[in-house]
Amino acid sequence: MTFTLPPYKQPDFTQPPLTDAPLARFVPVESAGVAPQNFHATSIYPEYFQLERGMWVMPEKSRMDCVVVRDGDTLHVVEPRRLAPGDLVCVGRREDGEDGIFVQTEPFGAVDGGAEKFAFRTRMTRESSFSIDYDELYSLLQYERDNGFILWVLGPAVVFDHDSREALARLVRQGYVQGLLAGNALATHDMEAAIHTTALGQGLYSKRSAPLGHYHHLDTLNEVRRAGSMPAAIESGLVRNGVMHAIHEKNIPYVLAGSIRDDGPMPEVMADCYAAQDAMRALVQQATTVIAMATQLHSIAVGNMTPSYTVTTHGVRPVFFYSVDMSEFVINKLANRGSLSARSILTNVQDFLVTTERGLRDWCREGPPPPPEE
Amino acid sequence: MTFTLPPYKQPDFTQPPLTDAPLARFVPVESAGVAPQNFHATSIYPEYFQLERGMWVMPEKSRMDCVVVRDGDTLHVVEPRRLAPGDLVCVGRREDGEDGIFVQTEPFGAVDGGAEKFAFRTRMTRESSFSIDYDELYSLLQYERDNGFILWVLGPAVVFDHDSREALARLVRQGYVQGLLAGNALATHDMEAAIHTTALGQGLYSKRSAPLGHYHHLDTLNEVRRAGSMPAAIESGLVRNGVMHAIHEKNIPYVLAGSIRDDGPMPEVMADCYAAQDAMRALVQQATTVIAMATQLHSIAVGNMTPSYTVTTHGVRPVFFYSVDMSEFVINKLANRGSLSARSILTNVQDFLVTTERGLRDWCREGPPPPPEE
Amino acid sequence: MTFTLPPYKQPDFTQPPLTDAPLARFVPVESAGVAPQNFHATSIYPEYFQLERGMWVMPEKSRMDCVVVRDGDTLHVVEPRRLAPGDLVCVGRREDGEDGIFVQTEPFGAVDGGAEKFAFRTRMTRESSFSIDYDELYSLLQYERDNGFILWVLGPAVVFDHDSREALARLVRQGYVQGLLAGNALATHDMEAAIHTTALGQGLYSKRSAPLGHYHHLDTLNEVRRAGSMPAAIESGLVRNGVMHAIHEKNIPYVLAGSIRDDGPMPEVMADCYAAQDAMRALVQQATTVIAMATQLHSIAVGNMTPSYTVTTHGVRPVFFYSVDMSEFVINKLANRGSLSARSILTNVQDFLVTTERGLRDWCREGPPPPPEE
Amino acid sequence: MTFTLPPYKQPDFTQPPLTDAPLARFVPVESAGVAPQNFHATSIYPEYFQLERGMWVMPEKSRMDCVVVRDGDTLHVVEPRRLAPGDLVCVGRREDGEDGIFVQTEPFGAVDGGAEKFAFRTRMTRESSFSIDYDELYSLLQYERDNGFILWVLGPAVVFDHDSREALARLVRQGYVQGLLAGNALATHDMEAAIHTTALGQGLYSKRSAPLGHYHHLDTLNEVRRAGSMPAAIESGLVRNGVMHAIHEKNIPYVLAGSIRDDGPMPEVMADCYAAQDAMRALVQQATTVIAMATQLHSIAVGNMTPSYTVTTHGVRPVFFYSVDMSEFVINKLANRGSLSARSILTNVQDFLVTTERGLRDWCREGPPPPPEE
Repeated sequence: MTFTLPPYKQPDFTQPPLTDAPLARFVPVESAGVAPQNFHATSIYPEYFQLERGMWVMPEKSRMDCVVVRDGDTLHVVEPRRLAPGDLVCVGRREDGEDGIFVQTEPFGAVDGGAEKFAFRTRMTRESSFSIDYDELYSLLQYERDNGFILWVLGPAVVFDHDSREALARLVRQGYVQGLLAGNALATHDMEAAIHTTALGQGLYSKRSAPLGHYHHLDTLNEVRRAGSMPAAIESGLVRNGVMHAIHEKNIPYVLAGSIRDDGPMPEVMADCYAAQDAMRALVQQATTVIAMATQLHSIAVGNMTPSYTVTTHGVRPVFFYSVDMSEFVINKLANRGSLSARSILTNVQDFLVTTERGLRDWCREGPPPPPEE
Repeated sequence: MTFTLPPYKQPDFTQPPLTDAPLARFVPVESAGVAPQNFHATSIYPEYFQLERGMWVMPEKSRMDCVVVRDGDTLHVVEPRRLAPGDLVCVGRREDGEDGIFVQTEPFGAVDGGAEKFAFRTRMTRESSFSIDYDELYSLLQYERDNGFILWVLGPAVVFDHDSREALARLVRQGYVQGLLAGNALATHDMEAAIHTTALGQGLYSKRSAPLGHYHHLDTLNEVRRAGSMPAAIESGLVRNGVMHAIHEKNIPYVLAGSIRDDGPMPEVMADCYAAQDAMRALVQQATTVIAMATQLHSIAVGNMTPSYTVTTHGVRPVFFYSVDMSEFVINKLANRGSLSARSILTNVQDFLVTTERGLRDWCREGPPPPPEE
Repeated sequence: MTFTLPPYKQPDFTQPPLTDAPLARFVPVESAGVAPQNFHATSIYPEYFQLERGMWVMPEKSRMDCVVVRDGDTLHVVEPRRLAPGDLVCVGRREDGEDGIFVQTEPFGAVDGGAEKFAFRTRMTRESSFSIDYDELYSLLQYERDNGFILWVLGPAVVFDHDSREALARLVRQGYVQGLLAGNALATHDMEAAIHTTALGQGLYSKRSAPLGHYHHLDTLNEVRRAGSMPAAIESGLVRNGVMHAIHEKNIPYVLAGSIRDDGPMPEVMADCYAAQDAMRALVQQATTVIAMATQLHSIAVGNMTPSYTVTTHGVRPVFFYSVDMSEFVINKLANRGSLSARSILTNVQDFLVTTERGLRDWCREGPPPPPEE
Repeated sequence: MTFTLPPYKQPDFTQPPLTDAPLARFVPVESAGVAPQNFHATSIYPEYFQLERGMWVMPEKSRMDCVVVRDGDTLHVVEPRRLAPGDLVCVGRREDGEDGIFVQTEPFGAVDGGAEKFAFRTRMTRESSFSIDYDELYSLLQYERDNGFILWVLGPAVVFDHDSREALARLVRQGYVQGLLAGNALATHDMEAAIHTTALGQGLYSKRSAPLGHYHHLDTLNEVRRAGSMPAAIESGLVRNGVMHAIHEKNIPYVLAGSIRDDGPMPEVMADCYAAQDAMRALVQQATTVIAMATQLHSIAVGNMTPSYTVTTHGVRPVFFYSVDMSEFVINKLANRGSLSARSILTNVQDFLVTTERGLRDWCREGPPPPPEE
């Protein structure tokens, strides 16, 4: 199969009751970081606000659970903590025009056949069939590499295994990773692997415990901090391979968010979690496909800030969100938070990465496989 | 890496205190299916019984939690329920010679490097590194296909996905499956896939719910029962592909054990669970490698009846036991039951099968990959 | 809250299109255990078959995935394997009258407020709130003890802990357990606890490993087999406490189904799994509430054979099905199989039993607690 | 059982080879936040450093993976990121005196019988017996309330249920919670419950979805931010019950650490994760018992900063660490990180809290229950 973008369904504002809708109301902020009462909170969907009679405006870069701030004829979706006194915040909670607000909850038809099929399934479990998801993913990533922006959200388990770390570094070099969100541990253990060929002191391939191996990640952090930065550590030859090496080589933007469980941290890690959240959202706003794996915290954080759509030069298009995890719990938790548009693959991320890298290589060489007859 | 069998460490019975050990004692059974008090129960290890001064005899086909029955100079390991009045059962529970019984708890040195490395690891989780396990498995399966007997224990999830069902059928045709233990559901859903291209009514690849799809597995069972047997269903053309088709084609021995949750069942399913246990053990006694996946019940049942060693024309050699599952719970449960020699891979069986089939194909074409430097 | 039975919604057969429906068709069986093509398979819901113009008959004791056999004006729901040549089996798969068959998919309104609330929730996880489920369960069990039949389905983990085994035995003695479905392991480890105060050789309370403790369950099985039966073992004084002791004392009916992983087995265990299935269904047909815990195999088996309704002297009433497990996977698996009416509590069964026994005791002493204001 | 502190085993420094050990070496820091090469990293155990011949000094407040800084005859355990130029850092990695460093890996004998028993168990799973763990916990908490410092580490799931939120608030009021570590979500949903009687918009008890319920946590955050602080929100009457209310009333110290997935946040949440880590460690240094539940991130973060011992006016004593979770994965992960002294209870935290609060109440009224005979 070859991927094609689904067309966007523009709401028709020329029909009642929308023709009778009032203008959206905006109320100024009084105290910094506090929204007016009855503020409107955004969803993951495209939303329209009637600014003047017949002029319905959609903010281009949305995320859920934020407020809408008017700046002339432009609307911004803003975290409440970032509100300044005087900001004009939309108020009203009805979503079918009654408050001058319209939420488009079915923005796209069947997405390459996928979204529709999804609807037929009741519960996804580890026993769900995932062959088609892999094939659709290959097709999507080929398209996005040239026409979109593929953002990866990664927990450290992806570099705890020799083959998956190699596969991921190859995906970076081949252009399938266009942005990276992670924490301190990913960079630390990736560089531990480069310097010591271990993860937390165990052979990355052999699983042999190295003598004094529990010092490896501490020494890695210390030596990179001594070098002053991760780029300096790479350019000095201290770190000669791996994921962060490839990220550096290809000049891929990334955010490493700090956490209370960090050792070190690496020099590039952001200590302020809300500054990190802002930096992460800046990358999410560019994203057209997000792949989150092996991290509950980051998957949910990014799930919360990823809308179902984005506006590009092609117009309004979907943002695809894949979540890869071993546990039904994480998948259900994402669903319960309202990140409804996520697709999930329940498996070990090691296998997922090795399989995906290989599948993409075959796809490039041989083209898409014919779908099985059914 | 190329697989080589580890040498067996024969105990030295010419040294004290074993030279001073008494003869093993055997007591006749009084009631059918009831062992004498103080009966000796077998472990997963090679065990020796001194039948005459200096003559220590090891039963060739053991399993844990059974009793040892003497038949002249031969010893049989027998489930207590199978005891007949008059059977001579070994009594005594000390295992270092004091009762004429010696248990060899370290029969093999480092198994291809593997067993030793294992010792270094503390807890296996989904974040453990599995690259080496795949490579060792390819190497092992190449060896066993020609020199051993590879027994698979399978839950129905392996045929719920298009690619994994194909991979498994190819593994059968290529000779890597030499025996099969499963339940009614594996055969049912494999044949449902052949006839309807669905699993429980959902497209095996497309995941589309078929109209009246919940009838598919019931119709499949009914039509195979009408045909009279699975071979008849295959030969009539009703079933044209899949795992059971390949098993039939290659004439692979199998046991399908019935369970209280079966629909149908398929004609070949054994209704009596102890008769099924006996038939399963007959296959396990031939096995040199066992791969159990996606079934807690069968994995534990077979784990319980698989010893750590077997005797072949090559002498005493290990039996390898792999368990593939999504859940740490199942892995720990196997360990807690005393099936200590099992290796585990924590992943989705769909990915495991696709990856393994492909890895074996590459191995055949290109030979074993050089291990990474560490 | 006090439990009251919801009224049954009788379909109205005097309105079109049902007034125009044809008679249901019945076709004779040709070969034993094989249904006619196009057989109608039952659901978990009440189903009606028009036998004569205006005479719609509902089978009283249903279960899903079976066929409907006509015996004069009475209908029986029969497993296909039990069909005899000449049996008249209903054919037709449309369920809104077109084939003379009508399925009542909404038989009851809000069940004590519960079923309705259920509908509002999206996904149940370990983070769902369970306070109300406990309170509703206490209320339900008080009612059912006097007016229904409470059937428990138990895995062996319920007797692996001192306090939960005591709580369960008390529930039996207090009348809240009116039938029991389990396997060999439950009886074995319960009696091991009675004889040796261990579970699999570990102190039930202290968790200390007993010397030669791995013999305890084998000795227990051997001694009960020597006694000839579990009742004989109890009456001889070998087994002086525990769950099976209370079951015996109160003369509670039970079925122990054999499995391929059994040691022993206990004398009362049924070796033929389809005979066991029939015996289990005979108890399920009496059940008005089923509580299944700590066993995936038995929970799903019983889930499959439990309809959403039963007919008692009070008329048509719901059958309540509770599933208690640690894992979202088991819960979703039950849901995916069509056992949609199950309520689930995600927790450790030890805590569930201790909490439930205590909650029922308080309820008896103090009456139902007032619900919190909301 | 009544709790008694185990005596500390002081190493004997008057015996060889320790009498021949060199002095510990200290090397000055050159760049801020970078340790000298070959720095010594701390473990969870008491460690001694020979500062002058025969003078072995132990730092009183340790944590693993940090460095040891000398300040005259006093030693501080410091996170590498906090090092200032000129700080004297201990170097040397041998731990039996060879580098003037001695690590006491068996500081305490059998802890109330518990630590020893622990050693007998192989793997803990959900099927492990937990009765004794509850009883020991009651006994411990009674002791610690008067003689120690009980620190709780909590995920938001503890306030998602009516009964468990009540139980936790009671534990606070009764003095069993002496410090609290949590994140923004705990405070947010606890106050949502107080204001709206919902959690994420669902009735805390009834599970009914409230109209516009997805606004509840956003409104809660906004109103508390408008009030200016959580204490102000409580004192104004906005928040009238719950966990944070009790914490405020009893003047319990707490740290709320920010995270990248926060909405809001609450005014007291710390945005800088390393400042938060420092504040958390300040509470951990006071702790004698830590109870961590329903949060993987915080449990591991606090597990990493909790040593196995602390020094109080009673001398050197153990720090007890309990982890309560649904998943074997989290438990194993803690163990794999070296937090070996943790005890785990695998269950739903709702049941754990309700059971523990009730058990403590009974213990106070009736005294410790006699242990069962075994």
